[in-house]
Parts: sequence; structure tokens; C-alpha cells
Amino acid sequence: MLKVPEHQVAGHRAINGNLGPVIDNSGRFYKPLLDDERGSTELAFYKSFCSDTRVPDHIRRFFPVFYGTQDLEASDGSGFRSHLVLQDLASNHRNPSIMDVKIGSRTWYPEASEDYIQKCLEKDRKTTTVSLGFRISGLQIYESKESGFWKPEKKQVQSFTADNVRLVLRKFVSSNSSIGSNENPDCSLASIVYGGSAGILEQLLELKAWFEDQTIYHFHSCSVLILFDKESVLKGRTPVAEVKLIDFAHVVEGRDVIDHNFLGGLCSLIKFVSEILSISKESSIKACFTELEKKCYCTNNGNY
Amino acid sequence: MLKVPEHQVAGHRAINGNLGPVIDNSGRFYKPLLDDERGSTELAFYKSFCSDTRVPDHIRRFFPVFYGTQDLEASDGSGFRSHLVLQDLASNHRNPSIMDVKIGSRTWYPEASEDYIQKCLEKDRKTTTVSLGFRISGLQIYESKESGFWKPEKKQVQSFTADNVRLVLRKFVSSNSSIGSNENPDCSLASIVYGGSAGILEQLLELKAWFEDQTIYHFHSCSVLILFDKESVLKGRTPVAEVKLIDFAHVVEGRDVIDHNFLGGLCSLIKFVSEILSISKESSIKACFTELEKKCYCTNNGNY
Repeated sequence: MLKVPEHQVAGHRAINGNLGPVIDNSGRFYKPLLDDERGSTELAFYKSFCSDTRVPDHIRRFFPVFYGTQDLEASDGSGFRSHLVLQDLASNHRNPSIMDVKIGSRTWYPEASEDYIQKCLEKDRKTTTVSLGFRISGLQIYESKESGFWKPEKKQVQSFTADNVRLVLRKFVSSNSSIGSNENPDCSLASIVYGGSAGILEQLLELKAWFEDQTIYHFHSCSVLILFDKESVLKGRTPVAEVKLIDFAHVVEGRDVIDHNFLGGLCSLIKFVSEILSISKESSIKACFTELEKKCYCTNNGNY
Repeated sequence: MLKVPEHQVAGHRAINGNLGPVIDNSGRFYKPLLDDERGSTELAFYKSFCSDTRVPDHIRRFFPVFYGTQDLEASDGSGFRSHLVLQDLASNHRNPSIMDVKIGSRTWYPEASEDYIQKCLEKDRKTTTVSLGFRISGLQIYESKESGFWKPEKKQVQSFTADNVRLVLRKFVSSNSSIGSNENPDCSLASIVYGGSAGILEQLLELKAWFEDQTIYHFHSCSVLILFDKESVLKGRTPVAEVKLIDFAHVVEGRDVIDHNFLGGLCSLIKFVSEILSISKESSIKACFTELEKKCYCTNNGNY
């Protein structure tokens, strides 16, 4: 039984007669191949990536597993259409908090058509793409059983400023309840989800090391997907959090040049995440001191 | 006595009644302050940079020493004008080979005027700025006492392709004579000038580490200047080679964001330099083997 992915945070959705991806119950994600260049480019990428022995295994795990293509009835009712069969990245999460971060300070590439370039450039300048080297394309943050997910509207996400991005990255790893409000996020999960040896930061740094060297592909308009399950994290389950790369409809050959556009944006995202970690470390040290001071005060009957 | 800098490879020159920088005999470089925003921005940068305690000393050495400003008769005969008084970076070199590499995959910045953005974007797309994340703005390579310098015309430099850039970076550290021709450069100085603990690569990596962290400035349209003196290198003198940052007329505040545009381009340049080093290492190992094989052949009277 195919259905619309519940946890899709960006891109076209297979609802209201639109063309979009569908999932099954066995953890597979079916992405319709578009008729234009985007479809052929993404398929060509998955085929080439699968068999490219230059890609090390520890990097391969950042990409969705590719199971080939399959003809399926398209979600827009237009009949049968070829779909990429991919790993459904959300399938092993119950209530995943997800962020889709489009990496790069430009989403266009020199070989594209003039129309495409102008369209991209305009959007890159309107969003944080140019200023931050990345933009958040979509997100959902799990709050609690009672209030469910906070999933801001597409329009709201597209209008995020640098400060909004900072706040959202903090909210993403916080557990105070009213996360959609402007309450100061507690970042209580930052050290586990962002930090730690298996956390987001370590994974982003591993990706960065590869991007400093690889000249095989240039990943234009590609996203880093960050996923974790709040309840699993609190129960101490692993993996704590996952980083995945998705959307390869605009990948071009690297031609012996590194993907400096992706790398620069990735480094910027890394800096944002690091900042949250160092602030939350500082504040937990401060909290420890306050606690210690209180204890001293009590033991000394109010006299230091 | 002020004179036109002999070793200027890019930018406006103080010749034919044009406004440009001049030097004196004591190692100072006088750069005319333009009347528009560029002048005030560059002066503000030097003033702020000088006194900013967040800039570590090992990074400060990559910048020209700033001695303040001085009113001088402008080189275009327009009367007195304020000049930045800077360290003349070429003054301690006799026959410097110099390359001016403008870093970044875009030279414009969001705050600039629409006209400026469009002008920059057009040039960025025509040159290697967009594709490589940097472009060579000018260069001179010392060949020999007899033939002097190879200093290609501005037009030729502006039309460099990725392959031209690769070739020029190889020529820069080669010592076969006809360097202006298409002869295969021997890269005989690569391991000393690019490699080694005080070489270009190490210096670029040091800069990179700072750019991964610093959020004080965004260096738009700024250049990395690479200098070395072939004869000094061959005589084993130090410093072997120097990396300097120049041109700060479009530096803007970082506002807690890293300069992902500069960092990406710098990483791309680093990759180009590393490639030349690894190729030249490979070929010298091959040469050793060939030499060894010859010896074996001789010792064994022609029989292995």
C-alpha cells in the first residue's frame, strides 16, 4: 500500500492531485522522475554514485540507499511514471524532528539556462542562501504527545532571516514545550544531538573533510537532512541523530575542482551548530556554578 | 622619491596620467584613497583591523603593515589626495614572482547597489570566479636574468580558463626557460615553494583554519598575493615564499557568520596547489625509480 509521506518537510507533496513522492510500509520512498533534465540528472547521479569506487564507505552512508527505478501510477493521476526507489529516511523514526537545509550560497550553476540562473539567483538573494551560504527549506520539530509537531508554513520558512535560522537551530534541540512561540529555547538536547561523538556536528565534519577533497560531483541545490527522534534520544537509544544528503536533480560533474560552493555553505552551517554547542556548554557550566554556590550558601547557614 | 611600483601585477597603475599607487625607497606603498565608498571602506578596514584584539598574531602577519594615511600629490595630476601608507610587499624581493588571486565565487555582496552586483556577476561568470571559486587577477613569473619576467597582458589573464589556471600555477614554480610558451612546466620548485613547512600550502592552510572560525569580516573581492624570489629559493634563503591578503575596499562586517564565500574559494585554491604538489611528488618518485633501474641495469651488465 502506497501512501503520502507523513514526514516530508520540503518539496512538492503528493496531495490535492499534485505529483509527489510516495512511500510503502517496507521503508521505501518512491520519488517520481520528472520528464525534464532534472529527472534524468537525478537518475544518472544515483546510478553513477552507486558504482563509483572513489566514494568511501563512510561517506556512502550519508546518502539514501538506491534500489533502482520502478513504474508506478503517479500521484497526480496522470498515469504510470518511472519513480526512483530510495530508502525512506524517516521510516525508522517514530516522531522525527527533521530539518531540510539547502546548502550553498548559490543554487545555480554556470551550465544552466539563463532563465534558470535568474530564477535561482532571485530566490538565493531573497532567502539566507547568499548571506549564510545555506537556507532552511523546511522543518518539523516534535514537541510532545499532546501538541505533536511544530511545522511552520512554507512561506514562513522561506522568509527566515539569519536570526530566525539561529533561533530555529536552537529550537530544534530544545525541549521546552511551547516551541512555536518566542520563548527562549533551552537547548537541553544540544549536547547529545549536535555534540557527542555520533552527533550532528561530528557527521557534518566528516562530510566536510570529504568535500575538501572530492572533485567528482558538484551538488547544486542539494540538501542536508538532519533527523532525530526526541523520545529515542531521551531513552538513550542510538543512532542519536542522522545527517543525510538528498535531492540530486542539479548535480554536475566536478571536473577536478572541489565543490567550493557546497563546502563553504557546509562550513557556515557547521559554525552555526558549533556556536549553539559552545553557548549551551557555557550556560551549563554557569548553572553548575550557581548550583554549587547555593549548596555552599546552605552549608554555611547563609554565610559564605 | 616616489615612483610607480615595478612589481604591481593587478589594479590601476600610476602611469599615463592615471591614478594609482606609488612607492618610496624605504619599503612603503602609497595607495590613493578613492573618493567613493571604496576609499572609506578600505581605510575603515585597516583602522579596525589594526586595533582588533580578536585577530591572532599569526594571522596578522598575512596582512600588509598599515602606517596610517598621508596626503600626497596624486599620480593623475589632480592635486593632493589622501593615501593609505602600507608596507610595500615586493620591497624585500629582488625579482619576485607574484600572483594575485582574487578569492571567492562571487565578488559582490548583498548590501551592494544593484548596478555593482550586476557588473560583478557578469565578470564573475566570464572569468573562473564562479566555476573555480577564485580567479587570477594578474601575475609575473621571473624566468632568468636574460629573459626577465613573463607578465601576461590583463586581457589574457582575464580570459584564463580552468586549464589555463592549472598550467599557470605549474609555471609559477617551474624553472624551464621558455615559460611563456606551452612547454610542459617542470614544477622543479613546487616542493620548496608550494610544499614544505614554510611553503605556500602551509600558509594557505593556516589562513583556512582562521576563516573556518572568524566571523568579524567578509572579504569581498579581496586577493591572496603569492610572492617568492626564484634566486633566493635556489640559494636556500628564507622566507621561502609569502602569502598576503590585499585589497579591502569591499570588506563588510561578518555579523556572526563565517565568510563562506572566501573560505570556499580558498579551499579550492588549496586543492589546486595540493594537486600540483602530489603530481610533482609522484613524478619525482618515478624519476628515482627510473634512475635506480638504470643503475641496476648498469651494475648487472645489462641483465636484470
